[in-house]
Amino acid sequence: MEIIVAYDVSTEDSAGRRRLRRVAKVCEGCGQRVQFSVFECRVNETELRRLTHRLVDEMDHELDSLRIYRLAEPRSRAVTVFGRDRYFDPDGPLIL
Amino acid sequence: MEIIVAYDVSTEDSAGRRRLRRVAKVCEGCGQRVQFSVFECRVNETELRRLTHRLVDEMDHELDSLRIYRLAEPRSRAVTVFGRDRYFDPDGPLIL
Repeated sequence: MEIIVAYDVSTEDSAGRRRLRRVAKVCEGCGQRVQFSVFECRVNETELRRLTHRLVDEMDHELDSLRIYRLAEPRSRAVTVFGRDRYFDPDGPLIL
Repeated sequence: MEIIVAYDVSTEDSAGRRRLRRVAKVCEGCGQRVQFSVFECRVNETELRRLTHRLVDEMDHELDSLRIYRLAEPRSRAVTVFGRDRYFDPDGPLIL
């Protein structure tokens, strides 16, 4: 399934920036960073449980907000993008 | 349908902060701000078209990124929240 991970943290202090970096690293293990604090991942149920567990371990529950969204299928209908887009479609054609 | 609007803009300059304020105002007309730059809205197809049109008008296409996601149904399965949560469920019980 396709999921969105949205992570809200104050990056005004170095501890917040460090937590965001660590969250980004965990998410990039199963997907892509598409905005400053939004990640798109493709996971199965087991990977989702594991990902959630790791993110919950990294976050500060008093200060941060973590939201995980399950997208409608298919992806092409669920996502619309305007402006800058740094998403790379792993299923798309590879142009060399 | 339930949608997520994620808006990425540099808020280091006042023009970026102003665009984010304007985007937030548009989104709050049909939903809630749940993170600094993430909004949850419930819309029908007509409202989605109108909302998209207004957001595209507000944004800077060179600098900003706007992503609109359509969530899986039902909402209770599509959204999982950890940490701070400022979402108010309009269908929930009203406790006075």
